[in-house]
Amino acid sequence: MTTVGQSVPRIDGIDKVTGRAAYVGDLEVPGMVHGKVLRSPLPHAKVISIDATRAERLSGVIAVLTRDKLHGIDPYFGSVIRDRPIVAMDKVRYQGEPVAAVAALDLATAQEALELIQVDYEELPLVSDMEQALIPGSPALHETNLCAQHDYAWGDVEEGFAQSDRVFEDTFTFPMVYHYALEPHASIGQYTSQGITVWSTAQHPFMVRDDLARMFGFSLNQVRIIVPYLGGGFGSKSYTKLEPLAVALSKVAERPVRVALSVEEAFKTVRRHSARCTVKTGVKRDGTFVARQCWVYLDTGAYADNGPLVAGRAGERIAGPYRWPSIKVESYAIYTNTTPAGSFRSIGAPQAAWASESQIDIIAAELGIDPLELRLKNLVARGEEVRKGQRPLEGDPAEGLRLAAQAVGWDSPEPAADPTDAVSPLEASVSTGKGLGCNLSGVGSSPTSTALVRLHVDGSVTVLAGTTELGQGSKSVLAQVASEELGIPLERIAVVSSDTSIVPYDRSTGSSRSTTLMGLAVQDGAREVKEQLLELAVRHFESPPEELVLEQGRVLRQGEGVTFGELIEEEFGSVAGELLGRGYVTPRRHGGRLAQSPVFWEVGIAAAQVEVDEETGAIRVRHYVSVADVGKAINPQQCEGQDEGAAMQGLGHTLFEEMLYEDGQLLNPNLIDYHVPTFAELPDKLETILIENGDGPGPFGAKGLGEGGIVAAAPAVANAIFRATGVRIKDLPLTPERVWRALQRAKGQDR
Amino acid sequence: MTTVGQSVPRIDGIDKVTGRAAYVGDLEVPGMVHGKVLRSPLPHAKVISIDATRAERLSGVIAVLTRDKLHGIDPYFGSVIRDRPIVAMDKVRYQGEPVAAVAALDLATAQEALELIQVDYEELPLVSDMEQALIPGSPALHETNLCAQHDYAWGDVEEGFAQSDRVFEDTFTFPMVYHYALEPHASIGQYTSQGITVWSTAQHPFMVRDDLARMFGFSLNQVRIIVPYLGGGFGSKSYTKLEPLAVALSKVAERPVRVALSVEEAFKTVRRHSARCTVKTGVKRDGTFVARQCWVYLDTGAYADNGPLVAGRAGERIAGPYRWPSIKVESYAIYTNTTPAGSFRSIGAPQAAWASESQIDIIAAELGIDPLELRLKNLVARGEEVRKGQRPLEGDPAEGLRLAAQAVGWDSPEPAADPTDAVSPLEASVSTGKGLGCNLSGVGSSPTSTALVRLHVDGSVTVLAGTTELGQGSKSVLAQVASEELGIPLERIAVVSSDTSIVPYDRSTGSSRSTTLMGLAVQDGAREVKEQLLELAVRHFESPPEELVLEQGRVLRQGEGVTFGELIEEEFGSVAGELLGRGYVTPRRHGGRLAQSPVFWEVGIAAAQVEVDEETGAIRVRHYVSVADVGKAINPQQCEGQDEGAAMQGLGHTLFEEMLYEDGQLLNPNLIDYHVPTFAELPDKLETILIENGDGPGPFGAKGLGEGGIVAAAPAVANAIFRATGVRIKDLPLTPERVWRALQRAKGQDR
Repeated sequence: MTTVGQSVPRIDGIDKVTGRAAYVGDLEVPGMVHGKVLRSPLPHAKVISIDATRAERLSGVIAVLTRDKLHGIDPYFGSVIRDRPIVAMDKVRYQGEPVAAVAALDLATAQEALELIQVDYEELPLVSDMEQALIPGSPALHETNLCAQHDYAWGDVEEGFAQSDRVFEDTFTFPMVYHYALEPHASIGQYTSQGITVWSTAQHPFMVRDDLARMFGFSLNQVRIIVPYLGGGFGSKSYTKLEPLAVALSKVAERPVRVALSVEEAFKTVRRHSARCTVKTGVKRDGTFVARQCWVYLDTGAYADNGPLVAGRAGERIAGPYRWPSIKVESYAIYTNTTPAGSFRSIGAPQAAWASESQIDIIAAELGIDPLELRLKNLVARGEEVRKGQRPLEGDPAEGLRLAAQAVGWDSPEPAADPTDAVSPLEASVSTGKGLGCNLSGVGSSPTSTALVRLHVDGSVTVLAGTTELGQGSKSVLAQVASEELGIPLERIAVVSSDTSIVPYDRSTGSSRSTTLMGLAVQDGAREVKEQLLELAVRHFESPPEELVLEQGRVLRQGEGVTFGELIEEEFGSVAGELLGRGYVTPRRHGGRLAQSPVFWEVGIAAAQVEVDEETGAIRVRHYVSVADVGKAINPQQCEGQDEGAAMQGLGHTLFEEMLYEDGQLLNPNLIDYHVPTFAELPDKLETILIENGDGPGPFGAKGLGEGGIVAAAPAVANAIFRATGVRIKDLPLTPERVWRALQRAKGQDR
Repeated sequence: MTTVGQSVPRIDGIDKVTGRAAYVGDLEVPGMVHGKVLRSPLPHAKVISIDATRAERLSGVIAVLTRDKLHGIDPYFGSVIRDRPIVAMDKVRYQGEPVAAVAALDLATAQEALELIQVDYEELPLVSDMEQALIPGSPALHETNLCAQHDYAWGDVEEGFAQSDRVFEDTFTFPMVYHYALEPHASIGQYTSQGITVWSTAQHPFMVRDDLARMFGFSLNQVRIIVPYLGGGFGSKSYTKLEPLAVALSKVAERPVRVALSVEEAFKTVRRHSARCTVKTGVKRDGTFVARQCWVYLDTGAYADNGPLVAGRAGERIAGPYRWPSIKVESYAIYTNTTPAGSFRSIGAPQAAWASESQIDIIAAELGIDPLELRLKNLVARGEEVRKGQRPLEGDPAEGLRLAAQAVGWDSPEPAADPTDAVSPLEASVSTGKGLGCNLSGVGSSPTSTALVRLHVDGSVTVLAGTTELGQGSKSVLAQVASEELGIPLERIAVVSSDTSIVPYDRSTGSSRSTTLMGLAVQDGAREVKEQLLELAVRHFESPPEELVLEQGRVLRQGEGVTFGELIEEEFGSVAGELLGRGYVTPRRHGGRLAQSPVFWEVGIAAAQVEVDEETGAIRVRHYVSVADVGKAINPQQCEGQDEGAAMQGLGHTLFEEMLYEDGQLLNPNLIDYHVPTFAELPDKLETILIENGDGPGPFGAKGLGEGGIVAAAPAVANAIFRATGVRIKDLPLTPERVWRALQRAKGQDR
């Protein structure tokens, strides 16, 4: 292969490093005015009255949107349950919830107007956390505080536990975290009686289109969602977020309106689910897994967003990549008076893996079995049915786990903590250890993507693909697929994305799906172009297709060649025209290969060597290895970049990140108080190992990545801390304070 | 048929009447600055030196473009001959030619900077008109003043003249006129090292793309031309005009730059060719045409633009819709120091028809034959080969001519000028007469258009078609074609046009081609969607296709139905996805029907009844009838609107319009001094008659219109004046002064 497998430079790279790349915040739409959002100061209250009269009278104010201005609009949206209003209706359910919005000629006026809006609230009792939410008789945010529940089971776990030599039961907690994409949410809404145009930070523009069409009463072809470059997503921009508010505000303002959130407002838009997971596992003395039962509680905040799906996935993923003769899992999404929780890179998996993989090491230690060996003994194998009725596993997690362990020197002993070696007295307190983590996630969401490939008369190509370029490098990968399939150099391929009125349907950008599914669609489109070239060449050479070969932008017959462009010229009668190739990915196409879910299994494998300073509780990651099974790396450098980013984001929630609430008020919605990893906190050695067995369902045997890297970080680090210190910590993040307290507690118990 | 044939409201109507429709002048591109053009005050001069230093130093100026800043750019462009530079190189060749351009933070600064640019010229002798240009030894604008020459002939005209009973030779002149689209040219150029984006007032965006790719060294897929709504074209925005300057200025400014011309500057960008046509015609005593020889001289101004093509077409069209046993035509495009002349509604035809059709009436009067009868006797008939080797005539001009004559009451005598009837003494001087005009133009340019039809899961449709909506109503017509073909209501169809990076190839918007050729492409795209629906329905019903019927958005089998949307849902496995249908129009598709040129023959037929005030020379058009043979009117009201507009524009050059030059300086580039028809000058009765015989090559038997209506206006009016007064005028426009002088001259001769 020529292009596929090469680390070619990103095709959006120059735009970005020169600062030319335009984001929603850079755009100006003719007649556009500026919007600001009034947010609830209270976490739970009835909205008695809203008086916007004074704000409306302020010079420079165009319009104020409140619940009273929603005539003809269905105000509710939500990807699973439509429980979230554009602006507060009868109640507010979290601090920061939109209550009203102002459109004004400039932002300062809009801000000033916010302060003139009178809202009378009647405060309601706060439901601050899941424990409180589930107490019978607690105040209910919606009809009930139980947003969603999922169960599955096979075998008989009671019998399994009875047959087990040992049964372990542990409870783990995972913090509320925020995605912290560098670009907060922004939308320009343009409503007219004939339709809607929205420029927005949307990962799933076609789903936003569907929602807006329904809410505002339009056909799909009357709603246009344009997504320029996106400054990161990680799930925070999946489904519909700010768009209905921007459009409704535009409707009352009768002007296009831009609403661009601050970081603080973005924190109050969506976050990851915090979790409490209890895992009960029965094992034989030799380490054979017999039965598992899990209770997964996820705090979905004030509105469902993608919570019901996250609950299902967390439950599914807590089984881990292991063979269970019997299993029983129940998972719950619970409403509380906090920022709604939705999708975040590998939904539900980091929470599930944190619990599952931490407990594997607890079991290993108790049984005196090497954690690597315990895993290898129980791992599902290639071709095995991972979950009843789902697609058999196409990869081999054991290979990845062995590679990760090998890379951190699993079998080498830790250096002894030698005080004489220490540079300073404090260093004497340092100990090191290695840990592993491993998970398996069924990903790809729905196999529904379409693409269009245009071959121009000069032999250059434009690919129309609805994948959102959010920094993951999709444009380059899709260009590489088209280049390889057509035999046309990469620099002759352009990719146009994410404008629902012109680019054909794509379900979404997320769930590690784009390389696999949109990649297939682009490949199919390129193939349909080739079929047409062959037909034209048959006419040109007056030869049967068997005698013709497509190669490097030309069709050859016995050494004689004609360029693709010349064939188009012949067909169109002048230097004009183009050929169009369509790619459809649907469940039953591709020989039915995509009919079974998931689209593919993404492994998340990590090994970490950490250093624990027992005096301060500080953790330093000396060596971190992530293994990604990509089937075939279309662009190895981008694969590594994606995986390294995921690993670092995983180290964020492992070591630092947590949204803190007090009395329903979010305390730390900014980069000062909310600590994301910086370059100073990079592991001393950060490594990604790519596995390429060509066993993915995507183009050239590829499968996606980008999510696996985040999943196993926390258990790998915590397991390493345990092996360094003998202390098991079951709550994240592993801040110095928490580690120090755990160490102190352990020392106390020792005494 | 449900939609086709209905005068449905324009789908762009609401946008336009609400003022929401965005034109290039309304757009803001991030980082955009503003450009102004320095234009030559001299009509012909060497450019000795340009010093932009002072301008560049002015605060707020970003960059100045001069000939010295064109490194890496091919500065020349032109649709036939690449003789026009972006900015003046060695010479300037007309007053108003761009010499330099400034990009500044605001327009006032840009304007101020223009005055700081020092240009030293060395004046050259002026070539003010064609006569002077052709004098041997005259100064030459280019290598020669002969821009292009076309000849054709069949039969032996010398023998024809010898066999004729009478031979007539007359010379006619046609003025320089300007298109006067309400929106002058405007372009936003955005040049980066990776490609070009241009928002522009372009009728042929794909041709502009091709030019810019060549000039700036990019692939076709790196050049994006976006055309928002266009405020009229009429040919003034065909091919490449302002775009290279905007892009080159952006390149030096390293910022997007908007250059929006004033009306005066647009007058100095393009115009219609003035002409001098000599027609020599031999006839039998009974009126049978025997031979014709013509000499057509067209003033193409300082640069070729589309002049060579216009010369060819004028020559072709001067034959008229008549049967000629022998003919010999030579036509010339001549350079002069005036605004370059290019395409204008029905290129070459009004000039040719003015001469040809005026002479027909001269012959009729001399032979004592009714002008209608003389025409009918010699008209080509349906199925006849109009021009040797070209497509046989699919229509019947005789039918149209009879209808036009009948509509103005051809056979009714004129009212006697009865002084006792007069309201004022002046009215006593009024006389009336009726005149006819008829022409035939081979139109459609190249049969090369492609389209894409997207059927969404809710059953609504988006059509991607590269036709520029310039006010002619193409969006509505293309939506009607898709609606009819798919059996989906019109309000469920959206049309996206004119963005070369996303919409498939279309050659151009002009030559009355879009309804026919893009209409066919859209119809074909809709058919490919239907084929796929049928495949899905075969699976759904498990029935052979013969048992299935597509009807009203559903597929039916024995009364049982499934909607299009449900079929898409089944295929994509959820409420998702879409079907894509491609339409290709190329010469050899459609059973080879488009292989022969022209695409179709457009007749231009007019009848006028005019009133001549012999005291003042003022002309009043009492009744004006235009006949358009449209094959099938997709939208009758739009057809009528197009044809009425063309007729009025024809009355403009007939009665009022003329660009006046003195010493190479254009005297009247504005609405005060350049008189276009106003509502006050509408004919008392203005009528369009549509002929619908379903004989066009377009969808549902349609053929285009929009050009025919302008062609016969001038001869119809002049022939009516002759029949009212006995005075023959051979020069346009027929201003009161010119008519009065002719009447006076005739009276003098009578005495």
